[in-house]
Amino acid sequence: MTSHLENLPPIIDGRQSETALRVQRGTMRLMRERFDFCCYAEVSLASGRRADVLGVGPKGEIWIIEIKSSLQDYQVDKKWPEYHEFCDRFFFAKPPELDGDIFPEDQGLIVADGHGAEIIRNADEDKLSAARRKAMMLRIARMGADRIHQLMDPGPSAI
Amino acid sequence: MTSHLENLPPIIDGRQSETALRVQRGTMRLMRERFDFCCYAEVSLASGRRADVLGVGPKGEIWIIEIKSSLQDYQVDKKWPEYHEFCDRFFFAKPPELDGDIFPEDQGLIVADGHGAEIIRNADEDKLSAARRKAMMLRIARMGADRIHQLMDPGPSAI
Repeated sequence: MTSHLENLPPIIDGRQSETALRVQRGTMRLMRERFDFCCYAEVSLASGRRADVLGVGPKGEIWIIEIKSSLQDYQVDKKWPEYHEFCDRFFFAKPPELDGDIFPEDQGLIVADGHGAEIIRNADEDKLSAARRKAMMLRIARMGADRIHQLMDPGPSAI
Repeated sequence: MTSHLENLPPIIDGRQSETALRVQRGTMRLMRERFDFCCYAEVSLASGRRADVLGVGPKGEIWIIEIKSSLQDYQVDKKWPEYHEFCDRFFFAKPPELDGDIFPEDQGLIVADGHGAEIIRNADEDKLSAARRKAMMLRIARMGADRIHQLMDPGPSAI
């Protein structure tokens, strides 16, 4: 039986690559250590998109970081501008070996490896509305609880 | 060398007992499955107290459940009324073998074991102020992120 799914292009998902995981780790360390931002990886947004890294600052600031591990990884994503609707600041994060010039000059840029990260270019602030911030904070507070609860007790999803 | 700490009474902490852990597990399942509340265990509040279980409802409702695994566990705690400042509803949770009559009649009561739980007596609602709710949601969103980040990468606290 032939499925129409076979005709689709292969899914390219840099999130799952070793490189992307190193960039994720370094970026999350930078956020935590330098900026006192508490970070989640892989956050589903109300739009259906998933943010690679979402950080929550001490005053409720929300930053989103989109990890791009290769040129192709960047080129196939046409929807990254949508992240701006869900954060106060937006950054791309890249491994050291990837050319930073491929990213738009008006977007924040982080370089990261598995040990740490640096901000190469800061991101302009575009503040969320109070209503959106409130909705996002509730969403991630609940998501965080569920992720930990699932680890503590896999039962709830099985019963 | 003698420390003045030696003169303090022994710490009685029902949270750490096997019984308390079973009550915690059943209570968190009840909250998740029946009420769609996402739960954290052991939540530090702004007052310095720790809530045994704190649940966040779909609309941002916050419930706190204080686990009491024995009569003594209940008797030594004179400060439980302070939890009311940090939640919309407050419940005690007890194991099946503990007499429910030891708890005040005007407080919510849950009976729980390691598999599940039931609400024996509902709790009156006393809504948090918007400012307190906002502050708590930020606090637990950040706490949840840190707990998971610590599991993903123990490095940040070591570097």
